[in-house]
Amino acid sequence: MPEIPGPITIPPDKAELAGRLSKVRALMEANKLDYYVSFDPVNIYYLTNFANNVHERPFILILPRKGTPTMLCPLLESSHVKTRALCDLEYVTYYEVPSPQGQNWFDVYKNLIDENARVGIESALPVGIANATPGKHVIEDIIDDVRLVKTAYEIGRTVHACSIINEGHRKLLEITRPGAMEVIIYGEVVRLMMGKMLMEIPTANLLASKFIGAVWPPSLSHDPHIVPTPFTAMEEGGPHVSIVTAQVDGYGVEVERTFFLGKVPEVSIKPFEVMMKARSRAYEMLKPGVVLEEIDGQVRQIISKAGYEKNILHRTGHGLGITGHEAPYVALGDSRRLVPGMLISIEPGIYLPGEGGYRHSDTVLITENGYARLTDAPDTLAELTIGL
Amino acid sequence: MPEIPGPITIPPDKAELAGRLSKVRALMEANKLDYYVSFDPVNIYYLTNFANNVHERPFILILPRKGTPTMLCPLLESSHVKTRALCDLEYVTYYEVPSPQGQNWFDVYKNLIDENARVGIESALPVGIANATPGKHVIEDIIDDVRLVKTAYEIGRTVHACSIINEGHRKLLEITRPGAMEVIIYGEVVRLMMGKMLMEIPTANLLASKFIGAVWPPSLSHDPHIVPTPFTAMEEGGPHVSIVTAQVDGYGVEVERTFFLGKVPEVSIKPFEVMMKARSRAYEMLKPGVVLEEIDGQVRQIISKAGYEKNILHRTGHGLGITGHEAPYVALGDSRRLVPGMLISIEPGIYLPGEGGYRHSDTVLITENGYARLTDAPDTLAELTIGL
Repeated sequence: MPEIPGPITIPPDKAELAGRLSKVRALMEANKLDYYVSFDPVNIYYLTNFANNVHERPFILILPRKGTPTMLCPLLESSHVKTRALCDLEYVTYYEVPSPQGQNWFDVYKNLIDENARVGIESALPVGIANATPGKHVIEDIIDDVRLVKTAYEIGRTVHACSIINEGHRKLLEITRPGAMEVIIYGEVVRLMMGKMLMEIPTANLLASKFIGAVWPPSLSHDPHIVPTPFTAMEEGGPHVSIVTAQVDGYGVEVERTFFLGKVPEVSIKPFEVMMKARSRAYEMLKPGVVLEEIDGQVRQIISKAGYEKNILHRTGHGLGITGHEAPYVALGDSRRLVPGMLISIEPGIYLPGEGGYRHSDTVLITENGYARLTDAPDTLAELTIGL
Repeated sequence: MPEIPGPITIPPDKAELAGRLSKVRALMEANKLDYYVSFDPVNIYYLTNFANNVHERPFILILPRKGTPTMLCPLLESSHVKTRALCDLEYVTYYEVPSPQGQNWFDVYKNLIDENARVGIESALPVGIANATPGKHVIEDIIDDVRLVKTAYEIGRTVHACSIINEGHRKLLEITRPGAMEVIIYGEVVRLMMGKMLMEIPTANLLASKFIGAVWPPSLSHDPHIVPTPFTAMEEGGPHVSIVTAQVDGYGVEVERTFFLGKVPEVSIKPFEVMMKARSRAYEMLKPGVVLEEIDGQVRQIISKAGYEKNILHRTGHGLGITGHEAPYVALGDSRRLVPGMLISIEPGIYLPGEGGYRHSDTVLITENGYARLTDAPDTLAELTIGL
């Protein structure tokens, strides 16, 4: 396996953000778009380094094909945007939601784009904002397309983010014992990861940071998206499934493991092995040029042949970047090919009601020759059977 | 002032949710809508009690004018929805994002609504989902309209949520001293509030719970929406402005105070008094029938007459409910009238660059005869000058 690149903890420089913008503009050119409008806070963060939560006061980033982009934002937030945005921006503000007649965001917005322009919009754009957008609209998720392949900077940030969840996951395995309550595990693991981030990135943007450290005990682990209560208790045996995810100052990563406390039930051995075999097959296939859905197809075939077709609840994996879930998808239906610089999770799962779930997940970088696993946790049944 | 209703900590019963749905259906009837489609997680939570974060796998709630509503959701999440939704629902699932051809969410979705139907959609609906919605679309935010006036149940939940932030704010004033770092104040106050919520509502939904306890010291308090760093330190003097907000198992509330550590700078006395005068005027006007923008107009007049017109950065207040910011708005441009059962913040502010900000905020219920303030914190300059 190739070497893992070094971690990066500094903010993006102007050249990094200008490089992202020029890729977006190349796609604007190809799609003959005069403007592109972005409302999705994730896309705005990607291009500007400014993070916000969507609320009733809209922030709209307007990219002309040439010249400085414009940020339309509430008066109240303009200095906040200025302290975080690290690219050149023109600022246009409106007073409030609502404002007196003629001073609302839509009144100001309509003057920022030429009525005859061809305007690209995101499929996530709210219809209320789309309707207030001048010009002829073309739905094209071009910022999302640029985000598919990561820059060296983004990869370095992700390597750093993985070092934080790797430590969180070690702590999680250390403190999870029969009877331990979810709220205690969560508190300890999250505090550790948050503390490490703040030591290493004192200027971290908390609006772009989030931590989860939780365990699905055997009574829940067959159901990966149910939410344990704070007082859910761990049990002897297993399968327990850990979920340690974070957005570390903007960069989303995950590591998950199936593990056992004290003993491994007889019925768990086969599904654990089948999951491991499907996972190995997925890793064997990881290299540039491979079609994503073919990986999922092979994984499904291995699991199905072992008799667990009905116990597949989800795709093999998903992209990661400035979110913890994004394109591309390691899934039937995604016919894109792997490219060096993509970041994906590999996490085939088998879910048996009444017994539990079997899934390991890692954050994986596609490299020139194959892949590099950026998360680091034990993965064999022996290592994941914790002595009491 | 009228008595404050008692706190409620139990989940909504079927009658509560059925009552909300029938109000939505009355508006569907009035707007001649055959269906209403909701994607906004807040509106889905309001009608079903199921909370989710929007991600690439859509959840869509389809309300026919009669009969049981349908929840379209990913296979992986259906048991999660079922454990939280407390109303009758039909479930339709799709496999994944993406799925093999013909099995995607939009393939399944298009069969759930009649092609000739008149379909109400939210202005927040993403255009990609709007375009996949069959029928003739009418943008009408009718669930948001129903949410304007709270039920007795919602008021009881809000009273409880306020008891939590009241305690958080007392702790904040107790521990905020010159030199104290944001991260410590935040950690202590959030831990206290989270712990109290879990003691009082052990089944609280953590996806619908969120806590903030922070202080803007004088170097930042002139800029209410800037975000302090974790290592921002408190200072002697002031004005400091506290922000304690929470979403307590679904119910959003806030309390904020302008306070001083040890001494009050001479320059702070006038703006503090003007803020208090504007705030008193707002409270004097609070009763059913009053037009919201008239309150903001009077507040602006008092502040402007004192010479601070340019130092107004925001409206007098906003609605609260299952979010911490929603309609109606105590703002120029909102011509609606106060109605008993509305919940609003009252928080006129004056912001002086180089000196600091002046704002108190409370969560306030409109009653038959006036109002009841549900948050409880000291508000005079004497009480808010903390001895060191």
